[in-house]
Amino acid sequence: MRFDPTTLKFDDKGLIPAIAQDETGDVLMVAWMNLEAVQKTLETRKVTYWSRSRQAFWIKGETSGHAQKLLDFRYDCDADCLLMVVEQEGPACHTNRRSCFYRAVRDGEVVELMKPMV
Amino acid sequence: MRFDPTTLKFDDKGLIPAIAQDETGDVLMVAWMNLEAVQKTLETRKVTYWSRSRQAFWIKGETSGHAQKLLDFRYDCDADCLLMVVEQEGPACHTNRRSCFYRAVRDGEVVELMKPMV
Repeated sequence: MRFDPTTLKFDDKGLIPAIAQDETGDVLMVAWMNLEAVQKTLETRKVTYWSRSRQAFWIKGETSGHAQKLLDFRYDCDADCLLMVVEQEGPACHTNRRSCFYRAVRDGEVVELMKPMV
Repeated sequence: MRFDPTTLKFDDKGLIPAIAQDETGDVLMVAWMNLEAVQKTLETRKVTYWSRSRQAFWIKGETSGHAQKLLDFRYDCDADCLLMVVEQEGPACHTNRRSCFYRAVRDGEVVELMKPMV
């Protein structure tokens, strides 16, 4: 069956959350895509989000160099969430950490799991 | 620093997306939590979502038996997305598959990555 991106379920703002995970299984970040960002991502294999703050396409790494090459594009049972396996160049997080999920809550305390990359 | 769940950024519906990942790194599902669901999850270590369709708390596995025991609770740089490492009992997906992300798009075709568990 051919994949039809218009069958994805976008929210009332026309967006769908997209998880980026690297080949080791680490979850790097979550951002949002609209229909056109999904199409661009599949066509170019460069992961492309929709920036809600800038209201513009955001080709990950285009300015920072921290690009994401699409390795596998997956979606969930309800077709309302995306999971992209990516090859991440450098840090995914704007704090210069490998992953945006660098904090955990353990025994009620905030624990930092990783430092910024140098 | 003590973790204060009210510092998380909930959306205009009072919700935050929560990814469940197992110890092997597989992403199992994404659902939503409100502030009270976050608090219940941290207190009980039983992952508890807010069901948008039923508008009710959803203690994962309470009726199906496919519970999620919280192993680690993480959150991202913007504090607007959660990542829970869980011990998953049986399938996470309502289709009886281990993960909700059982479909990929490869060369434009939908590929099924896993079968329902028996």
